Amino acid sequence: MTLLSQTLAEAGERALLRHIRGRLPVTAGVKVGPGDDAAAIEIGPIALVTTDSLVEGVHFTRETAPARLVGRKALSVNLSDVAAMGGIGRYATVSLLLPPEVTVGWVDALYDGLLERAAEAGVAIVGGNLARSREGVVVDVTLLGDAGRLLLRSGARPGDRVVVTGTLGAAAEGVRLLQEGARLDEDGRLLATGVWTESSSAAVVACLRAQLDPRPPFALARSIAERGLARAGMDLSDGLSTDLLELCAHSGVAAVIDRSMLPVDPKAAGLARASGGDPFELALHGGEDYQLLLAIDPEEVEEVRELARVFGAEITPVGSFVDGEPAVSLRDASGERLLLPGGHDHFRPLGA
Amino acid sequence: MTLLSQTLAEAGERALLRHIRGRLPVTAGVKVGPGDDAAAIEIGPIALVTTDSLVEGVHFTRETAPARLVGRKALSVNLSDVAAMGGIGRYATVSLLLPPEVTVGWVDALYDGLLERAAEAGVAIVGGNLARSREGVVVDVTLLGDAGRLLLRSGARPGDRVVVTGTLGAAAEGVRLLQEGARLDEDGRLLATGVWTESSSAAVVACLRAQLDPRPPFALARSIAERGLARAGMDLSDGLSTDLLELCAHSGVAAVIDRSMLPVDPKAAGLARASGGDPFELALHGGEDYQLLLAIDPEEVEEVRELARVFGAEITPVGSFVDGEPAVSLRDASGERLLLPGGHDHFRPLGA
Repeated sequence: MTLLSQTLAEAGERALLRHIRGRLPVTAGVKVGPGDDAAAIEIGPIALVTTDSLVEGVHFTRETAPARLVGRKALSVNLSDVAAMGGIGRYATVSLLLPPEVTVGWVDALYDGLLERAAEAGVAIVGGNLARSREGVVVDVTLLGDAGRLLLRSGARPGDRVVVTGTLGAAAEGVRLLQEGARLDEDGRLLATGVWTESSSAAVVACLRAQLDPRPPFALARSIAERGLARAGMDLSDGLSTDLLELCAHSGVAAVIDRSMLPVDPKAAGLARASGGDPFELALHGGEDYQLLLAIDPEEVEEVRELARVFGAEITPVGSFVDGEPAVSLRDASGERLLLPGGHDHFRPLGA
Repeated sequence: MTLLSQTLAEAGERALLRHIRGRLPVTAGVKVGPGDDAAAIEIGPIALVTTDSLVEGVHFTRETAPARLVGRKALSVNLSDVAAMGGIGRYATVSLLLPPEVTVGWVDALYDGLLERAAEAGVAIVGGNLARSREGVVVDVTLLGDAGRLLLRSGARPGDRVVVTGTLGAAAEGVRLLQEGARLDEDGRLLATGVWTESSSAAVVACLRAQLDPRPPFALARSIAERGLARAGMDLSDGLSTDLLELCAHSGVAAVIDRSMLPVDPKAAGLARASGGDPFELALHGGEDYQLLLAIDPEEVEEVRELARVFGAEITPVGSFVDGEPAVSLRDASGERLLLPGGHDHFRPLGA
């Protein structure tokens, strides 16, 4: 039996650790890599640090998410946070909780994704930890980054435009497609369309990829921060309604967004409409878009738009910041109403 | 109902986050603290980074370990790693997995311990993450530290003495006492002796504290590293037999230790003997001592001993490094035999 087909209970912790360490490339800036009590790295004088985890049963399931894509996403969600501060990811630690029945091959595929995403982003995996879980996999990544000019959540002023990058709602539509049986393989290719016909497969793939393998606009974020083109910014992870309220709270302002201006992902919109859903709900509350939410001086919007195009991205002004207590209002044909946060709360049952 | 008596399902993620953030003190070196996409900290040019987690059901149970002590230990095990590299802990992130039935009060007590230990060690908690777990609490800490003169696992030479700090075996005896019903309260005072009589309560308390609230010799480690008094070193977390083999493997040497020289913790030895156990087994394989394992030039041993006394600690030479393939031998009255690693393997069932 090869190592990859053994379960962790069969292979043991040390064999798995040796296997993983053998895969980690040597990287510049790493004075002491994995294997000693701690890693020693070149960084500073100001560093960014963030931590985020993917929990099986909460953020993914092994049935619906290929291991390689779980690895990619575990790093991507942290890269998104560092980028949203205007920084560049440099070093990551990976703490894994693994049930004993998982195979070394599954963990190896997870590392395929982690290492591939790390290489794409110029990040070195410098340490980690393995522990047994009773049930379910947890991938907990802490990412260190070089700070440039900081892009904070505070700083938005009344009159600034509320701007988002990319499109919204595709990742949330991806969750629904997974529930309906649509699947990607380890390489992100369509494995099953679920209840969907082949004619919609391009849209299905796009939404599944948005969910399983998000691509935050790192370089654009860095570039906007460096040039001081945004007054405030954060990444869109919990959904626009939740995250914009957060930005308002940090900046001490309110915001009004215009429903007709929301860049609803067209593929997600088509699939959502076909199944009787409301695409705007996905875009407002869906979450996991990993795009940027920015406060931009109206006079700078065109410059940011041009800059985004250099990186193959689009930006969309969706409203304005206004004077007032932190709150978000939604304007549509019928008028203006308070938009309550509809994002995810980990501990509250849905509907509570 | 007060917030502290609510479960996480009742209070919700945001209320818990607000509560935790409200408890974090402002600390020097932290440019941007928790609440933004990432923290921004002053560190470098060389930083240390390590990550270690406490998993309920593997490393502790909520029934036997008070929340405050779980918090203290979660930071201590990481401080031990940074100290064993010759560094000083500076910034920590705390990633928590929590089942929805846990109360805010339990998490608050966990933070009592984290914050208290952080204050003792001069560490700032700069970020974190909360996620729901289906079963059991996980406290995953990543610690960043300032590096001084590095103390690596490589560098031990034939002829160097194998030296340990403190005593060995008390933490392992503590596990057995917990299984037998002995308990500490949140403040580390004896709550129940289990099957033990009051006459042994000082020993019971000492072993329970060694297990639930370890105190690695940070300052001594730093001081030894700074003065270049050790050729190699690491912390003792998996047990002497396992960790010494690891040091041998990194240094490309073998080691011979002398059973009669092992600093078996006298309180643990008394309790172990009283219950028919072998104190030497605890000291060789028990683990979780969080003392230092060092390779020291024979001519430097007395200087290290004097230095240790300054910090109220003792050191004990327990053997020597010798030429040979990485291996550890144990010498006793009956001769010399190979000592196999008896430490913990997370994924293998006991006895496999």
